[in-house]
Amino acid sequence: MASKRKNAFYAQSGGVTAVINASAAAVIATCRQHCDVIGRVYAGRNGILGALREELIDTSRLSDAMLAGLRHTPGGAFGSCRYKLGALDRDRAKYERLVEVFRAHDIGYFFYNGGGDSADTCLKIARLSESMGYPIQAIHVPKTVDNDLPITDNCPGFGSVAKYVAVSIREAGLDVASMAETSTRVFILEVMGRHAGWIAAAAGLAATREQEAPHIILFPEIAFDPDRFLAKVEESVRDHGYCAVVASEGLRNADGGFLSEAGTRDAFGHAQLGGVAPYLAQLVQDRLKLKFHWAVADYLQRSARHIAAKVDVRQAQAVGRAAVKLAVKGHNAVMPTIVRVADRPYKWKIGVAPLDQVANVEKKMPREFISADGYRITAKCRTYLSPLIGGEDYPPYAGGLPEYVRVPHRLVAAKLAPFAP
Amino acid sequence: MASKRKNAFYAQSGGVTAVINASAAAVIATCRQHCDVIGRVYAGRNGILGALREELIDTSRLSDAMLAGLRHTPGGAFGSCRYKLGALDRDRAKYERLVEVFRAHDIGYFFYNGGGDSADTCLKIARLSESMGYPIQAIHVPKTVDNDLPITDNCPGFGSVAKYVAVSIREAGLDVASMAETSTRVFILEVMGRHAGWIAAAAGLAATREQEAPHIILFPEIAFDPDRFLAKVEESVRDHGYCAVVASEGLRNADGGFLSEAGTRDAFGHAQLGGVAPYLAQLVQDRLKLKFHWAVADYLQRSARHIAAKVDVRQAQAVGRAAVKLAVKGHNAVMPTIVRVADRPYKWKIGVAPLDQVANVEKKMPREFISADGYRITAKCRTYLSPLIGGEDYPPYAGGLPEYVRVPHRLVAAKLAPFAP
Repeated sequence: MASKRKNAFYAQSGGVTAVINASAAAVIATCRQHCDVIGRVYAGRNGILGALREELIDTSRLSDAMLAGLRHTPGGAFGSCRYKLGALDRDRAKYERLVEVFRAHDIGYFFYNGGGDSADTCLKIARLSESMGYPIQAIHVPKTVDNDLPITDNCPGFGSVAKYVAVSIREAGLDVASMAETSTRVFILEVMGRHAGWIAAAAGLAATREQEAPHIILFPEIAFDPDRFLAKVEESVRDHGYCAVVASEGLRNADGGFLSEAGTRDAFGHAQLGGVAPYLAQLVQDRLKLKFHWAVADYLQRSARHIAAKVDVRQAQAVGRAAVKLAVKGHNAVMPTIVRVADRPYKWKIGVAPLDQVANVEKKMPREFISADGYRITAKCRTYLSPLIGGEDYPPYAGGLPEYVRVPHRLVAAKLAPFAP
Repeated sequence: MASKRKNAFYAQSGGVTAVINASAAAVIATCRQHCDVIGRVYAGRNGILGALREELIDTSRLSDAMLAGLRHTPGGAFGSCRYKLGALDRDRAKYERLVEVFRAHDIGYFFYNGGGDSADTCLKIARLSESMGYPIQAIHVPKTVDNDLPITDNCPGFGSVAKYVAVSIREAGLDVASMAETSTRVFILEVMGRHAGWIAAAAGLAATREQEAPHIILFPEIAFDPDRFLAKVEESVRDHGYCAVVASEGLRNADGGFLSEAGTRDAFGHAQLGGVAPYLAQLVQDRLKLKFHWAVADYLQRSARHIAAKVDVRQAQAVGRAAVKLAVKGHNAVMPTIVRVADRPYKWKIGVAPLDQVANVEKKMPREFISADGYRITAKCRTYLSPLIGGEDYPPYAGGLPEYVRVPHRLVAAKLAPFAP
């Protein structure tokens, strides 16, 4: 139990989101409320690398105004990283370094804000107590636009991407519909989601009637069949005058290979790296001779704080607060989860999951969330997704632009010799 | 002068915008206020094609609630088209058909809502009085995201795209900055702007300090130099850890050719563009071996009503109202313009321009708006652009999605034999 006052370490890991900083602000603010057991909160510069390099940002220097600003600022304010710690025996030197750094700065609490891979790192840190005799409590703060963490009903960061994608295809659909007769007939929007179709599925929320965009959703869970796809495109153009397609970047061929790899070329014949949309556009042009346009949202979708879902912001804050409360209660190797209590009206609460049941487990989208023909979402899926894009949470604006804050990365004086991970 | 009561024809032409329907609603509502001289307002289905085919939508059937909804609905509610009328001698049959349709429906006012090419069509209609003895007043309602109409200080539709692009690169820039150490170093966002760099320039508003995104803007006005570009990318990565690039779809080589031309052309004979971002990404990959990501906003940017600029919405409404008032005053072959009265605080008023000075004239971006090195905007440019993205004008939401309206395209009973343009 956290009897003696210890400092805390917080870091952001993996792909950032529009609301991860809302979790960060909640962690920091809640630690301040428990100053009897938690001392300073050191944020790692660029995730776990900040701990390995002893690059620590003292968040006690952050004003309340700055914390308030973090609540509505996208990206990772302290820097994030894609860095996975190996097994203890393989990466022993790194774990010893971590213990050294934690000891040097009296760190007894470890909050790691990330997805599946990060949960694995967090679990390894949690086991430092037993594996290396260093007393620490590690709590994972869930975050991923991929929505693929297990146990939790959904993941902070996903709801805002889902909202962005649904809003964008509804708007672009209206654009294409009004021009289709003499201009673009087929519009393709590529969205994120390398292994699971959660984000692509969210686009389906935009269509409340069969004739509305998107007419076709291409999921990574459904092997891509060019002929069936082209037939569906023709059908949509015939019935509605145009066809709006949302394609997941993770779309795969029947052989399981990514469409975006191996000789994919964009609409103009350029060799392409990651570009499902231009690939599909080329297919439509070659085989159907229909005028097309395509868009790739890429980072725009996961950083679009200007259209974040209020529910998502609230949940990102809630898991941050809960993580600290779990630590104060003496928990270790756990992750706060979002538990759905009711669909309509949507009600949720915070639960808790043991990290060893979270790390490296990927939640796939249930097949029953995808229509029989594989191109649409089912009513079940809509019931699950709808509440997650609920509400608007606009950032403050000045001069027509959102006022986002930047945390200066002033580092705490190092006490140890440099270390290169 | 409009002494005898006549009906009006309104149509949308060319690429649609996030606010063209706000102009439409203003035209219709203002006509209703002048019921002493203006009877019904018939909207052409799919632009001028609606007139040629006698496909007319009687807007008197639209409720006030529907008109209010149009104010915040993107796309072209009545359908738009890319269709250019040729010279009188070449397309005589079409002009005779137009006169036939106008006469059959007692149309004496013609409101055409479009850009440069549409202004040319509108001017030809305006001259029907002299060329074919049919009395009509044609007023052009300015609209183009390209902001390339002459005389008017700016064009309705541009401000909202400008805001979308500036907001998006600010957000994506924060995302990339937080991941750069272990992930993406170079991010490229492709934006619209066939011949003029107005939209690309607007991205520059996001950077208030040298280290902020975008670090490089590629304008169609500046011939693309691969070596200079790559050197600049390396410099930015060295100085800031990453590089955010905004590239115009109209980017050209030293020989004047588009960097990625589809080879296909639209109805106006314009080259169809897109794919500059992947081309540049490939260049960065091949020559600098830096991890990259790219996005192509395409139609998302011009239909993004959810982040429209309030100034833009107001101006779109103002030109719609002004067009009707000009018609009522007896004007013909004119276009209401936006006149800038002051920069800070921004003040503007409505002026008027003769159509023969507008049609087919493309306003380029002044060279003094682009920095000496060709990669940034100047203070002068910022002063011009800043007010145009001012204010937010959020649409109403339900269930997490914007509530956009759809005008049913119920057509007035035809009085004439069919005609195939």
